Amino acid sequence: MSRPDASLPNHFELLATDSGARTGRLTTPHGVVRTPAFMPVGTAGAMKGIHWREIRDAGADIVLGNTYHLMLRPGAERIAALGGLQRFTGWGGPVLTDSGGFQVMSLSELRKVTESAVTFRSHIDGMKIELSPERAIEVQRLLGSDIAMQLDECVRLPAGRDDIERAMRLSLRWAERCRRAFESAPDGTMLFGIVQGGDVPELREASARALVDIGFHGYAIGGLAVGEPQEVMLKMIEATAPVLPSDRPRYLMGVGTPDDLLESVKRGVDMFDCVLPTRNGRHGVAYTRYGAVNLRNARHADDPRPLDKESGWPAARTYARAYLHHLVKSGETLGAMLLSEINIAYFQQLMAGMRAAIAQGTFEQFYAQTRADWARGDIAAR
Amino acid sequence: MSRPDASLPNHFELLATDSGARTGRLTTPHGVVRTPAFMPVGTAGAMKGIHWREIRDAGADIVLGNTYHLMLRPGAERIAALGGLQRFTGWGGPVLTDSGGFQVMSLSELRKVTESAVTFRSHIDGMKIELSPERAIEVQRLLGSDIAMQLDECVRLPAGRDDIERAMRLSLRWAERCRRAFESAPDGTMLFGIVQGGDVPELREASARALVDIGFHGYAIGGLAVGEPQEVMLKMIEATAPVLPSDRPRYLMGVGTPDDLLESVKRGVDMFDCVLPTRNGRHGVAYTRYGAVNLRNARHADDPRPLDKESGWPAARTYARAYLHHLVKSGETLGAMLLSEINIAYFQQLMAGMRAAIAQGTFEQFYAQTRADWARGDIAAR
Repeated sequence: MSRPDASLPNHFELLATDSGARTGRLTTPHGVVRTPAFMPVGTAGAMKGIHWREIRDAGADIVLGNTYHLMLRPGAERIAALGGLQRFTGWGGPVLTDSGGFQVMSLSELRKVTESAVTFRSHIDGMKIELSPERAIEVQRLLGSDIAMQLDECVRLPAGRDDIERAMRLSLRWAERCRRAFESAPDGTMLFGIVQGGDVPELREASARALVDIGFHGYAIGGLAVGEPQEVMLKMIEATAPVLPSDRPRYLMGVGTPDDLLESVKRGVDMFDCVLPTRNGRHGVAYTRYGAVNLRNARHADDPRPLDKESGWPAARTYARAYLHHLVKSGETLGAMLLSEINIAYFQQLMAGMRAAIAQGTFEQFYAQTRADWARGDIAAR
Repeated sequence: MSRPDASLPNHFELLATDSGARTGRLTTPHGVVRTPAFMPVGTAGAMKGIHWREIRDAGADIVLGNTYHLMLRPGAERIAALGGLQRFTGWGGPVLTDSGGFQVMSLSELRKVTESAVTFRSHIDGMKIELSPERAIEVQRLLGSDIAMQLDECVRLPAGRDDIERAMRLSLRWAERCRRAFESAPDGTMLFGIVQGGDVPELREASARALVDIGFHGYAIGGLAVGEPQEVMLKMIEATAPVLPSDRPRYLMGVGTPDDLLESVKRGVDMFDCVLPTRNGRHGVAYTRYGAVNLRNARHADDPRPLDKESGWPAARTYARAYLHHLVKSGETLGAMLLSEINIAYFQQLMAGMRAAIAQGTFEQFYAQTRADWARGDIAAR
């Protein structure tokens, strides 16, 4: 099997670097993404508890859709007939889709991985479905993805080196098949390869080199944020980033906490996605400049003060903690809605702060100030 | 026991009548309410799945808060310390609170009604609580209600005439105690008496006459929309309305469907509240000019058309039926959020249409056109 042509058009423009950190612009068919970028996760074509206009207002340029969920319901062919995810959902902006592989592994039953494909039963209706690298690319094209991801196999950590290497090699062979299947994709859309290799630096490096050899529009680091210590995750980024071409975007999948974002950007990562801001919002946790605040805590019950009176996001500077506490304790949907948008807005504000600092060459100061603010902690109870 | 002074200031201005229908302005400490008015229900200090700004944008002038829920959690004294419901919730506009009595009957356990009060156990923590007419007024004052309701006893229909009359007489004695307890209430706030009498016209009439004799800022018709046929409800309105002073607002509690609203306004009702638009929105039903649409129906699965391309509400004229169907089928919160706001907006649009028609003396035409549109039904499947 001959290698596909490695020369792919580059839609990424690196605007500035500041020590390891980078800021740039990624141009997609549905708009420009400012990097470093945090992508809110709209699992099944919707953000949980947030209107699309709030995602936009919060400053997100791009969102992530989950291929696994969308192919099962409402179905990729249906979304294609309805004009793709951007039009179907009304979001309108850039969309990155994962390949479906990760969620096949975590959500479906009776999955079986062979050289040719992964076969599984839908967690919705038990239907047997085969997802090959070629079908993963086809589904993402039907969804209208601006950025598609290769199909890969993730191994849960901890795992033995043999298992990690086997999955990494299979992912590389699937990367090549995805790259080939992507050749007829619409102009301007992109395909990212995914670096695997678990917690073994040499395997990470080998995976990255092989992917660069195949050639992708951008490169993701996968199989992390699966329970390993942050230190391990950062080491894997450090093992990978130097191997990746500096003129292509780098995406750390499924990450993370504000701390993870700060540390990863410092190490040269450009893109992130995570359900954390909305999931924790539904569980009563607000992210602020002064760290995470658990609104379930009784100390907020009589507190008329907002979460952060100087926040750029209206809900964070207007609603009383007492009200948010009441909503969370009462299980009112509005509580989850407000905390989810407050968290998405904080994550976007953090990214915007990093972008501005990198552009101005002041990332180290921004990093130190952000850490100092987090360490200061939330305002004291009244 | 001597009767309290019946002369209460009147904050209602009747602007126009058109056969039986009326339009007016009710001035409260937190703003003006245009009538006929539909009050969305913010049970425990929040609308389910709707931001306050959307309630305002949809055209609602006033909302309803449930005293029973709020006195149990977060507590009336706490809300008072936080500036009242308007400030606590951020809504800022007029608020009507019920007395708590209806929900004591329907939600709490071990309730016991005596001459002096109703005693019950909280459905949240089992705590034993006594709600007397005087405490009901005190709690509503602590909540900061613009319009408070008397404590009353509702009887489930069908019921025997003796039971209905006993509860009606008790409610009248409680009305008098509430009226007395309200004498020190802040200027501009209002107290409404509640007509009871089940499905017995003579009892309804007797109840209304006795309440008018006591004297209230406005009069509610309670104990309806509890499962009886619409015909019975309308007969009770017809038995009651002529007895009520024409210069005071009339509020039909817990009503209703768009059809109920149209028929009741025609019979002289000025105010309504109901959970229907949000509850049915959570269950996948949208209200439109052409009737109710069940988005769960498979016929919407591939339909790119909006619910009503000429709706005045953005979500009703932009989101594809296919998308709303997908959200509802997938149990996505966004589906309930969008349908709830679409429904609240439709109810407000219906009220605005009635207000304008009454002001112009064209209520009969509006009534006929609205009925014709509903009868036309939803657009055909593609």
